[in-house]
Amino acid sequence: MNFEHLLAPRTQLMGVNAIREILKVVAQPGMVSLAGGIPAPQSFPMEILRELTTIVQEKYGSGAFQYDATEGFGPLREALVDHLAVKGVQTTAQEILIASGSQGVLDAMGKILIGKGDRVAVEAPTYVGALQAFTPYEPQYVQMATDEDGLIPEALEAVLQAAPVKFIYLAPTFQNPTGRTLPLARRQQVAKIIQQYNTLLVEDDPYSDLRYTGEAVPPIKQFAPEHVVYVSTLSKTFAPGLRIGFCVAPALIHQWLVIVKQGVDLHTSTYNQALAAEYVGGGYLQRHLPNIIKLYKPKQQAMLQALDRHLPEGFTWSQPEGGMFIWVEGPAQLDLEPVYWQAIERKVAFVPGKFFYINRGDGLATMRLNFTMSDEATIDKAVGVIGELLTQAIGEKVL
Amino acid sequence: MNFEHLLAPRTQLMGVNAIREILKVVAQPGMVSLAGGIPAPQSFPMEILRELTTIVQEKYGSGAFQYDATEGFGPLREALVDHLAVKGVQTTAQEILIASGSQGVLDAMGKILIGKGDRVAVEAPTYVGALQAFTPYEPQYVQMATDEDGLIPEALEAVLQAAPVKFIYLAPTFQNPTGRTLPLARRQQVAKIIQQYNTLLVEDDPYSDLRYTGEAVPPIKQFAPEHVVYVSTLSKTFAPGLRIGFCVAPALIHQWLVIVKQGVDLHTSTYNQALAAEYVGGGYLQRHLPNIIKLYKPKQQAMLQALDRHLPEGFTWSQPEGGMFIWVEGPAQLDLEPVYWQAIERKVAFVPGKFFYINRGDGLATMRLNFTMSDEATIDKAVGVIGELLTQAIGEKVL
Repeated sequence: MNFEHLLAPRTQLMGVNAIREILKVVAQPGMVSLAGGIPAPQSFPMEILRELTTIVQEKYGSGAFQYDATEGFGPLREALVDHLAVKGVQTTAQEILIASGSQGVLDAMGKILIGKGDRVAVEAPTYVGALQAFTPYEPQYVQMATDEDGLIPEALEAVLQAAPVKFIYLAPTFQNPTGRTLPLARRQQVAKIIQQYNTLLVEDDPYSDLRYTGEAVPPIKQFAPEHVVYVSTLSKTFAPGLRIGFCVAPALIHQWLVIVKQGVDLHTSTYNQALAAEYVGGGYLQRHLPNIIKLYKPKQQAMLQALDRHLPEGFTWSQPEGGMFIWVEGPAQLDLEPVYWQAIERKVAFVPGKFFYINRGDGLATMRLNFTMSDEATIDKAVGVIGELLTQAIGEKVL
Repeated sequence: MNFEHLLAPRTQLMGVNAIREILKVVAQPGMVSLAGGIPAPQSFPMEILRELTTIVQEKYGSGAFQYDATEGFGPLREALVDHLAVKGVQTTAQEILIASGSQGVLDAMGKILIGKGDRVAVEAPTYVGALQAFTPYEPQYVQMATDEDGLIPEALEAVLQAAPVKFIYLAPTFQNPTGRTLPLARRQQVAKIIQQYNTLLVEDDPYSDLRYTGEAVPPIKQFAPEHVVYVSTLSKTFAPGLRIGFCVAPALIHQWLVIVKQGVDLHTSTYNQALAAEYVGGGYLQRHLPNIIKLYKPKQQAMLQALDRHLPEGFTWSQPEGGMFIWVEGPAQLDLEPVYWQAIERKVAFVPGKFFYINRGDGLATMRLNFTMSDEATIDKAVGVIGELLTQAIGEKVL
């Protein structure tokens, strides 16, 4: 049977994830992947998890396995209040909504706000998972220009001046894909602009706990609490497989997110929320985080050094103080997708940066490199291969 | 700040869940609730769960805590093949999609198929959670008449004759709210009709494992495999807090469900899927299920006997061979919502049946009673209170 004719108009828009398609080859045996965006399994607190399963079963008993409130498991919401205060978000347990990964928040935000053709402003480049969450609700995306410090506030203001948007989506700290961080002054500028235009900002903050050097920058939420939906996750600091995300939203938005979430999955796994409640509330997160940083920091340094060593002239890259990614930009007009396929033949994978842009033709000469999944020697070797191929590609371009 | 003006048109449709509102008082201390729809915590395999956490951590290690494929955790998909074969669904692991509860399947079905104004056919009465999943996609619901044997096949055919539908939603076994089961002959008739009209059926089957007497009836999926999306869950036979649902869908539908699910939550908790894989694949489910049945069967008998003992003439009720609910129908024109509020004063709760209908004014004289959460003596006492109030309500009506 063919049910093609039954598909809703929105379904045509979703299509196949181009990144997913191009990355299918990455699973080949022997491949060194700098393409992923996932935490190293060595970063998971396996010993602590064993302890937590016992604690949860003793402390909550069958309650950890029963249906629970859509808003989230009480003890986790309580535990997150202090965790968020440290990050610069003042909130109460009642304002927190637990979701099935931060993806769950992004889907629900799209569902309650986006009508067909509504404008949604995103950075260029931006996080593809957010687009996957929003696109089924048929928005019209507006790109905002960025530089090495992230979003250019004037670009945001220009977008808002042109026409209202439903919301702005921003990942201001160690952004996926660029690793860039919006400096304090720009955060204050952005906060002022969204207040002035009375607009809603979705601040996605999955990576800020992974800081290897430098000083923490407060979230934009701190400067415009009434205008920001702050979204974060435990995927990078606990375990992504548990699917625990959360948000702090203005009351009206929070209330609708809860109603929408009830229709989507009733609530997020009670058991996993109970594990997370003990992990965050019991001080385990705070004790384990330095181990994750100790694991990632040398990998990041190795990658930065390898880029210095191997990349030809004409290439620049971000110098993030944390996160999981480094962003490489080559001379304009260079298309890195052919280089991707050559790298795959040499058993090295990365993500061509063009997939992170809304507008076709943007970001052709860019790539995203991930450093969390490989060891330092492998990173150097893989960047070496990429360097060779880029040198060759530039040579061909010049000839 | 007020962001009311930012809400999408679909959001207005969702409104507040009337059942949820009316049931808020149920949480009062001392309340005996026959209103819930949740499994008894005594049905959860707590000892087995302790064993499974150890097995999963040893067998899958950090893999149980990592990101995983949107389609679902391989070992769980494999384990479900045999489980489904026993239930009469012949399938392969590749055809199975794991979701965050069966709610996750229903949301994704709505998302890929329902365009604004599209007809979706549902039973009268039907499961409210399904409506919550579908409504945000702005369908036009069409009610199909039922009797004590569930859906009347001629009512289905009349709907399809009038105009095409995007899909039919049906819970043919121990339905929520009625507890009714569609007999074999009607299943075969329904299968024939959907094949004849080339229409898609969503067969929701959360309760069929909870059979206390009688013989299992094969799912409609067996008689029209190409036209049925079979949906089920481990919420009633393992633990609802783990949020594990699944479906077996025709290839094109399956493929789009995966794409949609990726945008909603990337994938369902790997850890919980690993626990479920061992629970189903390791034979624990098969060994534990008799315990659940032993727990529920006397509760159901107690409720049926209490109804016999306490309900006045003019009332009838379903005699389900399994599931979690009994459906009571009184003389037409009687509105049971006032009786609900009187019962609440007497510290007894049930769900007025009208909330399970699409059309306002339908089902006023009906109620749903749940028997899984109370012990036998309490059930008798609570039904006694309801019986008194119904006797009184009928008397007032007659006077």
